[in-house]
Amino acid sequence: HTIVLLPGDGIGPEVAQAARAVLEKAGAAHGLPLEFSSHDIGGCAIDAHGDPFPDATAEACVEADAVFLGAVGGPKWDAGGPRPEAGLLALRRALGAFANLRPITLFPGLEHLSPLKAERASGTDMLIVRELTGGIYFGDKVEGDENASDLCSYSRQEVERIARIAFDAARGRSRRVTSVDKANVLATSRLWRNTVIALRDADYPDIELDHVLVDAMAMKLIERPAAFDVVLTENMFGDILSDEASVIAGSIGLAPSASLSQTHGGLYEPIHGSAPDIAGQGKANPVGAMLSAAMLLRHALGQEDAAVTIEGAIAACLSDGIGTGDIGGSASTHEVISAVCERIS
Amino acid sequence: HTIVLLPGDGIGPEVAQAARAVLEKAGAAHGLPLEFSSHDIGGCAIDAHGDPFPDATAEACVEADAVFLGAVGGPKWDAGGPRPEAGLLALRRALGAFANLRPITLFPGLEHLSPLKAERASGTDMLIVRELTGGIYFGDKVEGDENASDLCSYSRQEVERIARIAFDAARGRSRRVTSVDKANVLATSRLWRNTVIALRDADYPDIELDHVLVDAMAMKLIERPAAFDVVLTENMFGDILSDEASVIAGSIGLAPSASLSQTHGGLYEPIHGSAPDIAGQGKANPVGAMLSAAMLLRHALGQEDAAVTIEGAIAACLSDGIGTGDIGGSASTHEVISAVCERIS
Ligand SMILES: CC(C)[C@H](C(=O)O)[C@@H](O)C(=O)O
Ligand SMILES: CC(C)[C@H](C(=O)O)[C@@H](O)C(=O)O
Repeated sequence: HTIVLLPGDGIGPEVAQAARAVLEKAGAAHGLPLEFSSHDIGGCAIDAHGDPFPDATAEACVEADAVFLGAVGGPKWDAGGPRPEAGLLALRRALGAFANLRPITLFPGLEHLSPLKAERASGTDMLIVRELTGGIYFGDKVEGDENASDLCSYSRQEVERIARIAFDAARGRSRRVTSVDKANVLATSRLWRNTVIALRDADYPDIELDHVLVDAMAMKLIERPAAFDVVLTENMFGDILSDEASVIAGSIGLAPSASLSQTHGGLYEPIHGSAPDIAGQGKANPVGAMLSAAMLLRHALGQEDAAVTIEGAIAACLSDGIGTGDIGGSASTHEVISAVCERIS
Repeated sequence: HTIVLLPGDGIGPEVAQAARAVLEKAGAAHGLPLEFSSHDIGGCAIDAHGDPFPDATAEACVEADAVFLGAVGGPKWDAGGPRPEAGLLALRRALGAFANLRPITLFPGLEHLSPLKAERASGTDMLIVRELTGGIYFGDKVEGDENASDLCSYSRQEVERIARIAFDAARGRSRRVTSVDKANVLATSRLWRNTVIALRDADYPDIELDHVLVDAMAMKLIERPAAFDVVLTENMFGDILSDEASVIAGSIGLAPSASLSQTHGGLYEPIHGSAPDIAGQGKANPVGAMLSAAMLLRHALGQEDAAVTIEGAIAACLSDGIGTGDIGGSASTHEVISAVCERIS
């Protein structure tokens, strides 16, 4: 299996190293031959090649069995010129990675980290399914200092495709899907809601479906996060709500993601950003990246056992109190990686 | 002074009655002659006139010194045909009510209501300034079951106008403004950020300005709400973030809003919705509506003293433990209204 690593910017390289370490360890333990190659994306690719998504990176990614991304962006590239994030968006499109899965789980023993009162946070275990290659992220843009615009558009096919992912996931969980939209204002949300309802009625009559407006959802997520199981949402709302939800579980540094494709092995990345303020200091929490590596084994390579091995090793470390500063621990990035790797073998 | 009351749907009429009661009481106490008229908007206007914003309502609103709105919407009008919310959007446009002020304050004694741990919630006192007549709410819409789209657009003038409101407000507070956008993805956000920076540099060099991406803001709001003072945001992001923030203060039923205009006296409404599930049961929290009435006195009629009288009476009731069920009390809507009115005289 060939795996492309895209370390990217800021703490990206540190967490990419973490992902590689657990993949190698779990691969060896389960007799999986894995081959890695590293490529530039984002700000470092702008610096080295003048392009946030160079052709060589694109080719390697579309040919790989799976792609792991660290993080992109930073103030260095905020001043003008090409943007690091354009590289990430181009990558998502190139891979057809339309289905972004963001599981949000409160780890036992980490309840004290949540900004929410323990009784509110307790039992949080949801899967956010975010549409990732449509909506306002990819519509026509008009740049300008006098007038600017962004077009948000969705087709029925795009909505159906992501809704199917959510409904299928719900079948392996509690058979409940909460679809988020702003149908009282947006035309795309009305298309979204109608499509989701029609698909449920036609193909998923066993799934309990409800609809929550995005503003109400931003409230309900913190009022009673444990009430949600599978949350289905379009691209921009998913961006906002998944970051919000990640905090409930204690730290965004813990949250992984998988972006699935119908044509490629998918893209795996922690949901945190490049955190330039702590880059290179051994402070980055590698857990989100390592959990993303586990998702890679599960979704791209079909290696459920190897995925569970990594997840179990991480849970063991967390319950042993081994963690970085953001989760109240005193370990460095490397120490956490070593502790997890030890528990894999 | 003429005040138009638009009770609307669901619990709207109950909370509009609360607003009227405190306005009459405070008006009498401060020697202010106030004249009220009531008009239909939203779902009840669809039922009575086939139009969520009838001409008679529009005329009364544009001629009034101020407009108070209860709430609009409900499942009854979800099935098709005109939408109640279209009436609210048309009203905002007709009044030119572009500047939506949403103060979020944790009332002393109500800390236990917040889903956040007390040490996180404590000290929350922010003003969200939301652009209300632009962005994706008002751009071209293409409806459809196969393809749909919504256009988000902003002009420099629109951004400047709302940023001025935020900077001016910050001068009366801590001189700090946090501007929220998604400048790493959206063209309108880049226009937004550039315009806000240019205006600060030109006219508000005394204001400390920073920029937070909307996804990060959704996290920071719950991680450390007390860190924020004035939060400046476009229409859709403001919708989501202000609902999220309102929960921090314990209940959305407590949160008021004022929507200011350059040409009219503005629109005043609690930020909660029509809550059809509890309508007509005397359970609606009237505090958000009564605090909105205070904002009406302050902003539309320049009656700071009368506004403070209402706010003081509400704070006294809350600290006496008088409140509706959503804030852990046992009082009915009417009992809360009476208790506040007693404390006004
Ligand atoms: C970096 C940015 C373009 C990206 C997004 O908005 O999708 C990030 O916030 C995320 O959620 O993966
Ligand atoms: C009812 C709806 C159209 C409205 C909005 O989205 O602006 C409401 O959510 C609000 O925040 O006032």
